[in-house]
Amino acid sequence: MCKIAAKYATNTTKALDLGCATGRASFELAKTFDKVEGIDFSVRFIQVGSKLQEAGYVAFTCKEEGELSINKKVTLQDLGYEQLAEKVSFWQGDACNLKPDFTAYDLIMATNLIDRLYNPRLFLDTVDQRLNADGILMLTSPYTWQESSTKKEFWLGGYKDENGNAVRTIERLKDILHDKFELLHVEDLEFVIKETTRKYQHTVSQVSVWKKR
Amino acid sequence: MCKIAAKYATNTTKALDLGCATGRASFELAKTFDKVEGIDFSVRFIQVGSKLQEAGYVAFTCKEEGELSINKKVTLQDLGYEQLAEKVSFWQGDACNLKPDFTAYDLIMATNLIDRLYNPRLFLDTVDQRLNADGILMLTSPYTWQESSTKKEFWLGGYKDENGNAVRTIERLKDILHDKFELLHVEDLEFVIKETTRKYQHTVSQVSVWKKR
Repeated sequence: MCKIAAKYATNTTKALDLGCATGRASFELAKTFDKVEGIDFSVRFIQVGSKLQEAGYVAFTCKEEGELSINKKVTLQDLGYEQLAEKVSFWQGDACNLKPDFTAYDLIMATNLIDRLYNPRLFLDTVDQRLNADGILMLTSPYTWQESSTKKEFWLGGYKDENGNAVRTIERLKDILHDKFELLHVEDLEFVIKETTRKYQHTVSQVSVWKKR
Repeated sequence: MCKIAAKYATNTTKALDLGCATGRASFELAKTFDKVEGIDFSVRFIQVGSKLQEAGYVAFTCKEEGELSINKKVTLQDLGYEQLAEKVSFWQGDACNLKPDFTAYDLIMATNLIDRLYNPRLFLDTVDQRLNADGILMLTSPYTWQESSTKKEFWLGGYKDENGNAVRTIERLKDILHDKFELLHVEDLEFVIKETTRKYQHTVSQVSVWKKR
């Protein structure tokens, strides 16, 4: 994912990792970008990235079977991030209502984010204002729209229109972003979340790469 | 999984697929066994296998994105099961309290079952009575014990004992089955459940193969 971002970025001064979760991708982006800001709605998530950056390590547990778990620890050194830590910072924020100082990015990467926003259209209609000239917007999502995250009237796809035709998210993204962005690239990318030592969630997200006009 | 069963089975007259769900493995076992009985606690599940067997097809939908889904249909012919259907039968039943006529099996295969039983010990203590001489018991499970399925006092592993030592399921299985069974083989096997066109659950179950003494 970060390799795709690096491939399409025109300039590499500052990147935003929006919906950064525990921040692994923010560090990876720092291999390419001089400065990376990671933002997530969840304070609990960004505390993990911050801890790794500031203390140089994070300790966590991995579920084994039943209530048994294995204690694990990972350091900046293990990950090869020692030289990158000072380039990265983590912030709590709402993608639909970001503070004005989060701006002037060469890349905004929103990973598995848009189908969890309460108003994804609001995000897409204003995101160009935070990008520099030739800035890149990279969206990654499996388009699993759900009412618990997004009221149905705000879904960008995954429903039938009044004529009974299927509305797919990628087509709506093209309509919404067309005036302000050029679509450079689309591909499927697999993500794996380890739930226990024996259970894994595999998600095939669609990546779309857009360049600000 | 059914290939492992076929490899270790001494006799191939009758097999039981316990926790058969929608019955795919029951048909696969019928490639090796003259007669296969599939049993599941869920009537809704066994209706799928029964429908395929009796009507020769099942229709179902696959979630795409949001509320969109794709209609699909599969036939006995598609699956190469035309000659096997008459060997298979499906029944509703409780693995911890099976009716007496479910007996005289050369193989009992319990796939992803033991960590969902309300009393797995009761099942293991009596299962040998339903096997023929030289009969094979094949257990497959990721050992994801959970209180919603099994009260904690009935877990066969996944907890710490009074001395703080981890109790792992495979070790308890060896203790419980040792008198009546010889352990022939253990291996890890990956199962994939497709949740939507873009989401998959991968589970690495442990398979253990036991021969009745």
